[in-house]
Amino acid sequence: MRPFSLALLSAQSLCEFGTKHGALDYKYIEVGLVPDIDITGSVPPRYVRQEVAAATMTTQQMQMEQMGQFRITVWEEENFQGKRCEFMQECRNIMERGFRKIRSIKVENGSFVGFEYPEFQGQQFILEKGDYPRYEAWSGNSGYRTEHLLSFRPIKCANHSDSKVTLYECDDLQGRKFEICDDYPSLQAMGWCSKDVPSIKVNSGAWVAYQFPGYRGYQYILERDRREGEYRNYNEYSTQAHTPQIQSIRRIQQ
Amino acid sequence: MRPFSLALLSAQSLCEFGTKHGALDYKYIEVGLVPDIDITGSVPPRYVRQEVAAATMTTQQMQMEQMGQFRITVWEEENFQGKRCEFMQECRNIMERGFRKIRSIKVENGSFVGFEYPEFQGQQFILEKGDYPRYEAWSGNSGYRTEHLLSFRPIKCANHSDSKVTLYECDDLQGRKFEICDDYPSLQAMGWCSKDVPSIKVNSGAWVAYQFPGYRGYQYILERDRREGEYRNYNEYSTQAHTPQIQSIRRIQQ
Repeated sequence: MRPFSLALLSAQSLCEFGTKHGALDYKYIEVGLVPDIDITGSVPPRYVRQEVAAATMTTQQMQMEQMGQFRITVWEEENFQGKRCEFMQECRNIMERGFRKIRSIKVENGSFVGFEYPEFQGQQFILEKGDYPRYEAWSGNSGYRTEHLLSFRPIKCANHSDSKVTLYECDDLQGRKFEICDDYPSLQAMGWCSKDVPSIKVNSGAWVAYQFPGYRGYQYILERDRREGEYRNYNEYSTQAHTPQIQSIRRIQQ
Repeated sequence: MRPFSLALLSAQSLCEFGTKHGALDYKYIEVGLVPDIDITGSVPPRYVRQEVAAATMTTQQMQMEQMGQFRITVWEEENFQGKRCEFMQECRNIMERGFRKIRSIKVENGSFVGFEYPEFQGQQFILEKGDYPRYEAWSGNSGYRTEHLLSFRPIKCANHSDSKVTLYECDDLQGRKFEICDDYPSLQAMGWCSKDVPSIKVNSGAWVAYQFPGYRGYQYILERDRREGEYRNYNEYSTQAHTPQIQSIRRIQQ
């Protein structure tokens, strides 16, 4: 198969192309270079992009821009085998692409959050750039073996060098609070006196909070761009959060 | 049982006391307050401690100091049930205390590294301050279910605010290198072009390197105080390291 430019294809049509033309056979869809739009060195590229997009970019340019920023490939079998599909945007239900489930993943650009069920429901899994050959590479809770991964979406506001979050002692962003800008594998070692964090405000960037120390157990993806960054009760952390227990927290890398 | 001071007891005799006097029955051994030795506010306490220890501290004071700095309690059953034992120092083989295995842990002070087998052998698990009610709270590789945790030791050189590590492109600290002082859940997102890190020099502090992105998979504890911080080949990362694959790395919190 001849490599082709994606300039005129949306992410969805790319995937459909792969499926229609026998995704099991080809090794890789070669993506044409996406030109970067940078007006000034003093403004971070992501902000430049937003402003330019609103003012002058065409739909086609926006698609190209998005393609450069987020790219994930998923396979139906472990170790990058079997049916595959490449995405530059969210996928609400991988079963609609003819997959039974996702069993291996490569994130080539950006960060994503994977979900146990379709429509971004169930347990959450952070997926940063790198290779995930089996479910245990992303699943944080080996007691509850989540081999399903049926939907995912990009995390657009992650910013590893400029992230801030405020932890609150009580529900509804009340009580004593603690502002942090760094990763903490043990909140208790940092001085937080409880195993629980009842509410959280994300001031900037995107974070992952974990049930256990050392970034283990249930994962909750917390973003400035969702709910205005306000998580007023533990059941807003995730559809499957059953307790406010959070013992470690870290920034998401873009 | 009447609370008692530990001033004249070593960590080992404390544990033996607990075992001899029926550790299954009592709830908690109350530890007397350990006086903190601080000469000047301008020098971090950990450095003050080392200098004072060398110059003027008695053996008894050093034991007390150590007790304040590192404390871990282990249980034979999940959820902090059954036989228990408290330690302020390393344990080479928990079976010598009459345990079959360790199934839950609370780290009350400092950071520890747990090992799959006695004598600090086999898979490694980072244990920072917090509660670990089941093995999946510390085990990073759910495909290879490691329910054993049979020895552990404190990590004395961890320093969350002053840690530096150099990653090398080739074995034996050769080839292109990359110095980092921050946590990276994805080395590839940072710009590292491979899934592998063939050799590592720890310049300061203590680090955990992981097989997969997002701090998952096999864990390798890398310390400035061991091997002079030099890990010249992947099989020096751990007795069970089978590949140089490392996709995320982070500082250890003290």
